[in-house]
Amino acid sequence: MAKAPKNAIQPTRAEDYPEWYQQVIRAADLAESSPVRGCMVIKPWGYRLWENMQRALDDMFKATGHQNAYFPLFIPMSFLEKEAEHVEGFAKECAVVTHHRLEPDPKGGLRPAGKLDEPLIVRPTSETIIGATYAKWVQSYRDLPILINQWANVVRWEMRTRMFLRTAEFLWQEGHTVHATSEEAVEETERMIDVYADFAENWMAMPVTIGSKTPAERFPGAVETLSIEAMMQDRKALQAGTSHFLGQNFSKAQEIMFQSEAGEREFAWTTSWGVSTRLVGALIMTHSDDDGFVLPPKLAPAQIVILPIYKNDEQRGPVLEYVESLRKELADQKYNDVPVRVEIDDRDIRGGEKKWHHVKRGVPIRLEVGPKDMEKNSVFVGRRDQPKSNGMTRDEFVAGVATVLGDIQQGLFDRAAKLRSDNTVSITNEADFRAFFTPKNADNPEIHGGFAYCHFADEDSIEDLLKELKVTIRCVPRDDNDKSGTCFFTGKPAAKKAIFAKAY
Amino acid sequence: MAKAPKNAIQPTRAEDYPEWYQQVIRAADLAESSPVRGCMVIKPWGYRLWENMQRALDDMFKATGHQNAYFPLFIPMSFLEKEAEHVEGFAKECAVVTHHRLEPDPKGGLRPAGKLDEPLIVRPTSETIIGATYAKWVQSYRDLPILINQWANVVRWEMRTRMFLRTAEFLWQEGHTVHATSEEAVEETERMIDVYADFAENWMAMPVTIGSKTPAERFPGAVETLSIEAMMQDRKALQAGTSHFLGQNFSKAQEIMFQSEAGEREFAWTTSWGVSTRLVGALIMTHSDDDGFVLPPKLAPAQIVILPIYKNDEQRGPVLEYVESLRKELADQKYNDVPVRVEIDDRDIRGGEKKWHHVKRGVPIRLEVGPKDMEKNSVFVGRRDQPKSNGMTRDEFVAGVATVLGDIQQGLFDRAAKLRSDNTVSITNEADFRAFFTPKNADNPEIHGGFAYCHFADEDSIEDLLKELKVTIRCVPRDDNDKSGTCFFTGKPAAKKAIFAKAY
Repeated sequence: MAKAPKNAIQPTRAEDYPEWYQQVIRAADLAESSPVRGCMVIKPWGYRLWENMQRALDDMFKATGHQNAYFPLFIPMSFLEKEAEHVEGFAKECAVVTHHRLEPDPKGGLRPAGKLDEPLIVRPTSETIIGATYAKWVQSYRDLPILINQWANVVRWEMRTRMFLRTAEFLWQEGHTVHATSEEAVEETERMIDVYADFAENWMAMPVTIGSKTPAERFPGAVETLSIEAMMQDRKALQAGTSHFLGQNFSKAQEIMFQSEAGEREFAWTTSWGVSTRLVGALIMTHSDDDGFVLPPKLAPAQIVILPIYKNDEQRGPVLEYVESLRKELADQKYNDVPVRVEIDDRDIRGGEKKWHHVKRGVPIRLEVGPKDMEKNSVFVGRRDQPKSNGMTRDEFVAGVATVLGDIQQGLFDRAAKLRSDNTVSITNEADFRAFFTPKNADNPEIHGGFAYCHFADEDSIEDLLKELKVTIRCVPRDDNDKSGTCFFTGKPAAKKAIFAKAY
Repeated sequence: MAKAPKNAIQPTRAEDYPEWYQQVIRAADLAESSPVRGCMVIKPWGYRLWENMQRALDDMFKATGHQNAYFPLFIPMSFLEKEAEHVEGFAKECAVVTHHRLEPDPKGGLRPAGKLDEPLIVRPTSETIIGATYAKWVQSYRDLPILINQWANVVRWEMRTRMFLRTAEFLWQEGHTVHATSEEAVEETERMIDVYADFAENWMAMPVTIGSKTPAERFPGAVETLSIEAMMQDRKALQAGTSHFLGQNFSKAQEIMFQSEAGEREFAWTTSWGVSTRLVGALIMTHSDDDGFVLPPKLAPAQIVILPIYKNDEQRGPVLEYVESLRKELADQKYNDVPVRVEIDDRDIRGGEKKWHHVKRGVPIRLEVGPKDMEKNSVFVGRRDQPKSNGMTRDEFVAGVATVLGDIQQGLFDRAAKLRSDNTVSITNEADFRAFFTPKNADNPEIHGGFAYCHFADEDSIEDLLKELKVTIRCVPRDDNDKSGTCFFTGKPAAKKAIFAKAY
């Protein structure tokens, strides 16, 4: 075996966190930038991870009564204009289709031709186009609620992009629901942020806090935006999912009206909620280390990879036969209610290179099996979350595999929860607040305090301070946040605390 | 129960086939047109069907060694220009993004702003953008083959659209593979058209013929296009899937080169293959009848719907409890290796309306269960493929449910195969050819002869005749087509027959 390098990713997290992030994506073969500005190519390993996320979320959506449907990619410009805050929020960063064909350019090459009467926007989000359809579907209270989700690509013309976290095109799901009453719509908004929190914590092993966005941070056009916020390893916050109570704003813009039980014509109440491929970025920054990606077993495309070891063709046949029987035996075990996902890597490359290939890609468990292991009926087990590999009997490993995968999943969650609790404080004065958000180490300005819980009364009055420190109000946490106090920024009384943090 | 109408769809197939098609889509709640020209909304029932198609196809792609990935929605205009035939084929119907934001228009409203240096095309197909990425991935013969599939939306600015069959935006999958040799690429092209034929026949219950397209009908830029062709109930052909051997055309345009085992720099050989939401249209036109949609059980979102029947609240509780136990018992049965998909419709609407709701949506089996059935431990079974409902014991029905679903699936295939064979002829002279393609009934010009097998030598020389009769060459069938003969159009010898037909 080749001597292991000190670590597989250069630079390390401590040396340069943003660059480490890019290098993990590269080393784990998750994605790469494309020839189209701001758009990425999601490579097979990254896409399989996204498919696993989709499957788990889709099951949760269906269990809460939602169905999938599909709406147009394009939104007529006039639709966007109908909701004033909404267009304000998206007009500055949208791809605009103005022509419907190409023709030879007299100067050479091609040029756009066939100008459209009305420009079309490539959807940055679909409230307006879906709302226009719902307006036709909803006549009576009997047609409500409408509970629909869409898996789709969307485009927001971001100027500064970073793979998975912020790309011009990204994949996501967007739920769009219509209700007869405000109460039901608020309930739906809460239900779906709870689904996202459940997914983040129980599938991604990523602790999150549910809270309300302050008015300045709300989705354009929403009455209330709930979000889940997670702490990354550089102690920055990442908004991992949002659920919006839209009140009657979009039903008024799109004329979604129904006849109530009492016979009145009323505007409906709507919600929308979404998560995106950004979650892949969140997963990377929550668990990965200086050797590459670390995958929580529940979402890992392969939970176990078997590496057959042999020196010659004579050994090869029996070893391959043995590992295939081992693979089948493992695939008959279940973890998280589905068969264990196990693969054999029989590529003809050096053993050390092969091992590091799977370390960097974050596979939870590696099994090395050679002729000696066969004789002893043992396997050599490398866990991605532990530095050293261990031998154990084949039977013992197979019998305990679900338990080990569960341990790894729980261990990742616990480690992330500890990081968050170690870097979360309550702050009651400006000096401490300033100190908390000042980088500890001039060489690595990314590393600062973490999450600060502070009572606050008014976001407008602290805008300048937050801008100066590059800090934002992440959310007003929903739970365990009922003690009022004093806002030290303004001296005013405040009912609740908010989380302040630097953020992605 | 309400008296059943003579039939649920107006007009009938015999009266007006194209309008019948639109009305089936409406009655089955599959899709509707959207406010965006040429784009449709796929409604939950239609989308569930598409999801089932996706799942089956995706499993087949993975079983043949392919992985999924995702590439950008946008293609720089210059990429399209690199392959001359390809751009010729797509330039006339593509959505062109020219700006990246909106700004207030002094005349009111908004206008496009932020002009792009280079226009971007919304992908009509992804050979060029994926090829550009592959060029970076491929260095050596060791990197080959690349076997990747993408599930995506694409846009072709069609002037005449029809739901599912031809829409500006549609959903599809596109496989894109790279190989070291021509032989391997040809094998892949054949393998994937076989996968499509397998899916069409064994999942959609739709008989298809595999063949080669003539040069004029090939995919723009392909060396050879294989297709599967099916006969719809109006005897027109529908191209249901294509697989293209691209030779080195795209690898030359995108510079996909590799170092061979012998150390030479060579251009790679590529293929692409795709099926789309058009398959939903094919399914409708293959099996549906004058009462609406007819779903093959293997793809039906619900294979069985249980309709509880009760007269008052006293009956309601016990009936619902009984049908829930029946639902569970049925869901424990397997058909086609997965649990039977069974749903209860307990909506508070009239029994007749409810029954017709599911007839029109094509659910294979309806079960009516009321207090009397409970007493007798029986169920009242309505099969979508049979006119009359029948009582039988609950145990008998449960034990035989997989067999019945299999019978329905096979029956649909057999009926479609018979229609095709009844309307397929060999033709050896122009008079018969003309007669075959002349509508039999002036009131319904859609109904004509069907598929004509003719030897032919040269498509250019018969272009005018085909145009006059609105007939196209569908394909040169691959199998059972080795007897040479005389082309009656030209009098020249011809090695093979082609299928001539009117087509969608």
